[in-house]
Amino acid sequence: MTTRQDVATLDAQDPLAPLRAQFELPDGVIYLDGNSLGAMPRATPARLQQVVRDEWGTGLIRSWNTAGWIELSQRIGDKIARLIGAGPGEVVAADSTSVNLYKVLSAALMLVKADAAPTRRVILSERSNFPTDLYIAESLARQHGFELRLIEADELDAALDERVAVLMLTHVNYRSGRVHPMGAVTHAAHAAGALMLWDLCHSAGALPVNLTGDWSAEESADFAVGCGYKYLNGGPGAPAFAWVHPRHTERMDREQLWQPLSGWLGHAAPFEFSPAYRPGRGIQRFICGTPAVVALAGLECGVDTVLAAEPLGGLAALRRKSLALTRLFTTLVETRCAGHGLTLVGPRDDAQRGSQVSFARQEGAYAIVQALIERGVIGDFRAPDVLRFGFTPLYTRFVDVWDAVEHLREVLESGEWREERFNRKAAVT
Amino acid sequence: MTTRQDVATLDAQDPLAPLRAQFELPDGVIYLDGNSLGAMPRATPARLQQVVRDEWGTGLIRSWNTAGWIELSQRIGDKIARLIGAGPGEVVAADSTSVNLYKVLSAALMLVKADAAPTRRVILSERSNFPTDLYIAESLARQHGFELRLIEADELDAALDERVAVLMLTHVNYRSGRVHPMGAVTHAAHAAGALMLWDLCHSAGALPVNLTGDWSAEESADFAVGCGYKYLNGGPGAPAFAWVHPRHTERMDREQLWQPLSGWLGHAAPFEFSPAYRPGRGIQRFICGTPAVVALAGLECGVDTVLAAEPLGGLAALRRKSLALTRLFTTLVETRCAGHGLTLVGPRDDAQRGSQVSFARQEGAYAIVQALIERGVIGDFRAPDVLRFGFTPLYTRFVDVWDAVEHLREVLESGEWREERFNRKAAVT
Repeated sequence: MTTRQDVATLDAQDPLAPLRAQFELPDGVIYLDGNSLGAMPRATPARLQQVVRDEWGTGLIRSWNTAGWIELSQRIGDKIARLIGAGPGEVVAADSTSVNLYKVLSAALMLVKADAAPTRRVILSERSNFPTDLYIAESLARQHGFELRLIEADELDAALDERVAVLMLTHVNYRSGRVHPMGAVTHAAHAAGALMLWDLCHSAGALPVNLTGDWSAEESADFAVGCGYKYLNGGPGAPAFAWVHPRHTERMDREQLWQPLSGWLGHAAPFEFSPAYRPGRGIQRFICGTPAVVALAGLECGVDTVLAAEPLGGLAALRRKSLALTRLFTTLVETRCAGHGLTLVGPRDDAQRGSQVSFARQEGAYAIVQALIERGVIGDFRAPDVLRFGFTPLYTRFVDVWDAVEHLREVLESGEWREERFNRKAAVT
Repeated sequence: MTTRQDVATLDAQDPLAPLRAQFELPDGVIYLDGNSLGAMPRATPARLQQVVRDEWGTGLIRSWNTAGWIELSQRIGDKIARLIGAGPGEVVAADSTSVNLYKVLSAALMLVKADAAPTRRVILSERSNFPTDLYIAESLARQHGFELRLIEADELDAALDERVAVLMLTHVNYRSGRVHPMGAVTHAAHAAGALMLWDLCHSAGALPVNLTGDWSAEESADFAVGCGYKYLNGGPGAPAFAWVHPRHTERMDREQLWQPLSGWLGHAAPFEFSPAYRPGRGIQRFICGTPAVVALAGLECGVDTVLAAEPLGGLAALRRKSLALTRLFTTLVETRCAGHGLTLVGPRDDAQRGSQVSFARQEGAYAIVQALIERGVIGDFRAPDVLRFGFTPLYTRFVDVWDAVEHLREVLESGEWREERFNRKAAVT
């Protein structure tokens, strides 16, 4: 029988506990939604003031040079590269995940077309992939004469046939928290002759990601995108990132293939103001318009909070703690809230679980989440019936898990979630 | 003979003079580059602190509802609409100018294709249009089998033939400052059967723009995009905006045409998380990914500085002052710097001049701009030989014009620009 005291001992022994001090978290809140919007690093407000007051207000246009604004996308890209197994000069931080996905998936389709393989005309993905991925793929499929084929995760092997041009998956499912084994899936895609595109929105910064060596040093994924405002703590609507393996950017160089969003900062020499587009080398061609300087500065502060774990064991250590947190949460819910109709959604097996845990409940999932939020326990609801809880090992404590489960138990036992105010739908759910 | 005292009198009589107090400008700087990056509104640092500390730090994920984050793109779009002659619900603030141009130009080409007019396959633009516009158009032309035809401004009438699908122009030329007469050009495009797409980067917030009624209430442009960080003072890399006439969004609704960047927030019901894309009504379908909340908050502060001119006569009054500033600058340069090889680039005629003045000089244009910057007079250089000075009527004083010209005269007379340090090229020019 576990007690709160037992759980507090886990915090006392946690080598990563000091990392929490990097964040400002409001009193009375247990924040289990860092998978949707990361918490605010303490460094961010001061850094943004510096960018706004000093670099913009005083430096004005001169700061493009003196404050290095022009290199921000690539400098921050290089930091993100360290978290996902990519090399320096291979990642850019810019635009939104949706826009970046459009760029890299377009490039993938373009490469397949250039292969003169007219029978490969399928983009394969999971039906439960995050909708924006499916919408962008659907749009590109319409434009380029491809078919978007959606399957369940367990149908993957059978579906990887000779018609598949690109396999596009989110590493950790946004709803169930299920993790795809990156190396094995990349290998399977390549074995079937398809390109592998990973969406890292729910994994970058939360677990070890190795795009280039998860299976073997020789086998690497092809494309990736990811989000800046979830586990990278970049702030609401922070810029996203894109990675393309150098073998593809080099081929695009050789064969004069463009990604379609050919904005001026992806040009080889933007300040020549030449009327004809000539893409920059490598990943630079995946930059489009002027960088969102203030937003990028916020993203950099967030990325730095994850890099701060490097001396303490980095993402491997964060992953160990994350699994301990999600395991504890699952066990406590299933014991202390037993008999209240909650069913675990997603994998019980550590290897298959991301940094979040979801439970389904036939009735009242939305209202229960609202009642928890009123108590200061912030998770979220995902239609139609899922209560989702994210555990960010950088700032979530073991006692937070205990306390959150106690609140959940009280909400269920009291039936307070049935109150009308918890059942009114808000604009954003 | 004009004196500094005469010029100071113009400031004393200027009804718009109080608007300058909305900005924080560094001491010792005469800022003539608001056409490249607007100055910092005094309100911005505090507003961003509020967004970051209170809305993000304390409100966390709840702020999507409680702080109205989800409506930001459209709320700010509605404010921008007031500056460009568009209606509420017709403009969104999001992404970069390049990305928005990609969306609206794609929509235009799609509509032309749906017209079953296979002979209309030309995108017509100016050779001296801002490069990113040309690059995006070139990319879309390649993808959709169109030709991008580039002409000089005075060849426009002859070039508007029956092959032109879209006429894409920047209202005020970034280099010369020349203004296209919006109503007349829109009329000519329509008379030739083409769609009219305006880039308002160098005009929105600087001069009256009336996309829907500059020629007649019945004749309106079709598409527009514009920049948030120039005359709208939104901060470095602030989000841009897009406008589409309701007749086109309605047609896109009816005929199930999508703009290609079909991200989840352009979906009719994003929080249903449905796997199939179903575009939102009207301009909502031109939203793509998650809004850049912090950057949008900065943009709103900037847009508000322009709206603050409304009780003082609005953009018409700003335009009168802007013309007085550019006229004075031109006259003073041509008299006080006579004999130094400066040639006016762009129109002398008020009606054709935007809010900037450019001079070309065969030798040393880059170095002269650098020497001026060292003296605190910030204009900019545009390759190969142009010194460009922007006059933002919200915060530029008549004495600033006088003092800037005196500095220019001293730089030219002293020959100080020949010093080596002014001739070293920086990354961003």
